[in-house]
This record gives sequence, C-alpha cells and structure tokens, in this order.
Amino acid sequence: MKDLPPGFIWYAHRVSYGETDAMGVVYYGNYMHLFERTRNELMRTTGMSYAEVERRGIFLPVRQADCRYRIPLRYDDLAWIKGGISEWGRASVVFSYEIYNETKDRLHATGSTQHATVDASGRPVPIPTWLREIF
Amino acid sequence: MKDLPPGFIWYAHRVSYGETDAMGVVYYGNYMHLFERTRNELMRTTGMSYAEVERRGIFLPVRQADCRYRIPLRYDDLAWIKGGISEWGRASVVFSYEIYNETKDRLHATGSTQHATVDASGRPVPIPTWLREIF
Amino acid sequence: MKDLPPGFIWYAHRVSYGETDAMGVVYYGNYMHLFERTRNELMRTTGMSYAEVERRGIFLPVRQADCRYRIPLRYDDLAWIKGGISEWGRASVVFSYEIYNETKDRLHATGSTQHATVDASGRPVPIPTWLREIF
Amino acid sequence: MKDLPPGFIWYAHRVSYGETDAMGVVYYGNYMHLFERTRNELMRTTGMSYAEVERRGIFLPVRQADCRYRIPLRYDDLAWIKGGISEWGRASVVFSYEIYNETKDRLHATGSTQHATVDASGRPVPIPTWLREIF
Repeated sequence: MKDLPPGFIWYAHRVSYGETDAMGVVYYGNYMHLFERTRNELMRTTGMSYAEVERRGIFLPVRQADCRYRIPLRYDDLAWIKGGISEWGRASVVFSYEIYNETKDRLHATGSTQHATVDASGRPVPIPTWLREIF
Repeated sequence: MKDLPPGFIWYAHRVSYGETDAMGVVYYGNYMHLFERTRNELMRTTGMSYAEVERRGIFLPVRQADCRYRIPLRYDDLAWIKGGISEWGRASVVFSYEIYNETKDRLHATGSTQHATVDASGRPVPIPTWLREIF
Repeated sequence: MKDLPPGFIWYAHRVSYGETDAMGVVYYGNYMHLFERTRNELMRTTGMSYAEVERRGIFLPVRQADCRYRIPLRYDDLAWIKGGISEWGRASVVFSYEIYNETKDRLHATGSTQHATVDASGRPVPIPTWLREIF
Repeated sequence: MKDLPPGFIWYAHRVSYGETDAMGVVYYGNYMHLFERTRNELMRTTGMSYAEVERRGIFLPVRQADCRYRIPLRYDDLAWIKGGISEWGRASVVFSYEIYNETKDRLHATGSTQHATVDASGRPVPIPTWLREIF
C-alpha cells in the first residue's frame, strides 16, 4: 500500500446490523467506534498495543472528536479505514481517519480525534520518547 | 401502581434513533441496556443506588441474561418497563423485566438477568443482610 | 429556566453502566447518543417530534458532528444537557449542545451536529417553512 | 478445524474499548453484537450473506436470546466465537455460540438466539428450501 503516508494503516471493518439505525445506515455515533478500532490496530502494528501503553502508565483520553459524513455506510458493507497520526503536540496527539468503500475509491467519511497524554491520575504528561518513537 | 408485586417498579424509556437498527426496530442487544436502566432505577428507589452498593464493596456482575422478543419497539416509542427482584439465592439474585407500550396494555418483551454477589476481587460472597433488607 | 437562549431546552440524562468504558467514564462515542436524545426532546417540546417530521417527508441526516470533552462523566452521574438550534442554513441546520453536571455549574462537554434537510429519496430540500416555524 | 460440528464456524473478534464498561470488562449487552457478527459470518461462508437473504424477501428477526457469562472478556482480548445452527423449526431456526479465548482453550461465554423466518410484512413463513440447503 505504497501511497499511505508513513505511520498510516488500512483497517477493514464489516458493518453489522447492530451498527445501523432505522434510516438503514450506520448510526452517526458508531463512527467513533470505527475510529477507535482503527487507532487500536495502528498501535498494534507498531508492536505496542494501546493496552501495553496503558500498562506503562500512559493513557490517551479523547479531548476532541469530529466526523464529517459524506456517503452513508450500510449493513454488510466492507469499509476500509485509513488511519494515522497527523499531528504531535507536547502532551497531545491527533489521529486522522478516512473511511472508504470496499474498493477504496469512494470516500464515505472523514474524521479526527485529539488525545491528551496523561498518567494514571489523569495529570497531563509530555509524550514519552518511547511512545513517539514507535510510530 | 397498586398491582405491582412488592419490590417492583415501573421505569419509562423513550426509544432513540441510536437504539434502532436497519429493520426499523430496537436492536435486540439494546434490550439489555433497558434492563440495566430499570434495575439501576429500582435500586435508586430503595435509597441505595448500585453506585453506593459498589462503594460498600459489593458488585453484581451478570451471570446469565435472556430476553424474549414479542412485539418490536420502534423509534420514539415510550416504553414502560416493569422490573423487580424475582429470586434470591445465597450469593446471587435474579431480576425480572417486562417491557410494555406507553399505555401499559401491550407486552413487547420479557427477560431476566441473574447476578452473582462478589467482592472487589471477584470472589463470590453471600448476599449481605443490608443489601437484602433494602428491597 | 430564564437564561436559556430562545429555542433551547435542558434535557436530563442518568449515566448507565452500559455507557461507560474500562477507563470508568462515559465512552466518547456515546456523547453522540446524548446529543441525539437532546435534539429529539427539543423537537418534541415544539409539539412536533422528529418522528412526525419524518412522517411529513423530511429527514435530517447528520452531516457533521463534533464534541469537545472537558471533564469525564461517570456511572450514575445525572447530566443536564442544554441543547438548541444555533444556526439555520438554506437546506441545513446546526444544533449545539453543552453537557453539565447535576447542579448545572460544571461544564463537562460541548458539541454540535450539522444536519441536512433531505426528502425520502435523500435529495437536499430547502427547510420547509413549517419546520422553521415550530422553533 | 476438524472438530467443528458441520455448519459451524470460528469467528475472531478483537475487543475494543467501546465494548467495555466501568468494571473493565465487556458489557453484557455487547455479547449480542458478537453473536450477530458470528452468524453474519456464518451465512457469508455459505455463499449467501444475510443481506442477500433479505433481498430474497426472508427476514430473521430474533425471537429469543440468552447468554451465560462465565469469564469476562477484557479490552484487547482476541476472542474466538464458535457459532452455528443447532436447531431447525418449521418457521424458525436456532443459532448457538461459544466464546473462547485466543488459544481456544478457555470458555468465556455461551449463548443462543432463536429467529423466526418472516416475509417483508413480518408474517411467519416456512423456512424456504434454498435457505435450509445452504447450510
């Protein structure tokens, strides 16, 4: 997948019935779950899952999230989500996401999530070097 | 509400879009959320919320759950859920639920959840007297 | 509630276990459900529920959503959500939301959702006069 | 996978944060989503997805569901779900599920869902031969 920016991945997701709503499309709040699954997978591909990051005492609570909905996803669609880190702050990090159809030629939605880096007590801490280096 | 068994309550719930699925009805897994909201409210009416029970060191993880779906709930329906404790074990308790329409004359679903009583480490403990007495 | 902007309401919501995550706080995607519940209630207070709007052939799919998370909500919290329409477009409308604690003196989160006005076939249509007038 | 009963499959699922609750484990209602994903995948492996079944005019609404929770699933766990059809009625079908850990040697949960076969108007219809034959 040569045209992915460095540090980006593709994540595949099959839409289930439980993610849709009475309009017949994926409920708008469920895109946040897709974003989360994508950044989990992104971290796992670096060799350090988010679960492992937490075990090292660093948490990444979401500070801000947004999504732009262009074309609805429907039940049984196979979606491809391109996700990666688009911005590093001193004590924060931004992930960006683009959701495509099965053949990756139609853009369904875009979004981003901003996360603080905090310790177990919730206090902001500068991004540890080891965290930055894995990406 | 004179015909409620002792220890039972009525809980009202308005169906949102996010609870429905592409069949236009409440997704079957979401009935578990309705059951949970009902037993939360039941405990709150006793004067001791489940949050308070946890602060006293007792947890009530679900061991078994079932639901029978008779008539679908739809978006914007106002549902009334009758809930209460139907059975006490030595270290477990069973809640039962019936979901009705707005006028309480049509039964949409029934269900139950069985809960263990455990301490913070997850070990089963006999139901404390203070817990049993609040109902 | 005299200091609410015209067309705004307060909506109360009790946090359930099913809305929280392993960090012990409301999962970030679930704020979208709170926003939806608030705008449903807003429409209902006008005398015309969203279900009724749909029956008249107008749908309000979400085009954009965002949320800023300031202080986490926890299990059993009673949240008050202030919601209303903050902007009218020609064929779109923006709802804004602020989530407060039980005593309405601590701001937990803010957000907005932008909706298109479309007909049953999904085609954008100008906001009908009757829809605008109910607010 | 030689020891699977005929018509059964293994489905892999990675637990996300959004599926957990404040007890640190997968919320009990979310097991219904896992069951649904498993039966979707089961049908897809037959060569006819549930989406295709619906296009042929047959719907499989859930009539009854139950789950027995033995060992909690946690964030980032990779679960394997064994699922298949365990019973055929005249106008109904029962799927059974067993949820295992990553190495398939620890049973976390078991459950079943009973589905009616109905037409687009919701009327029960005998199971079509073509539906039965694909399994």
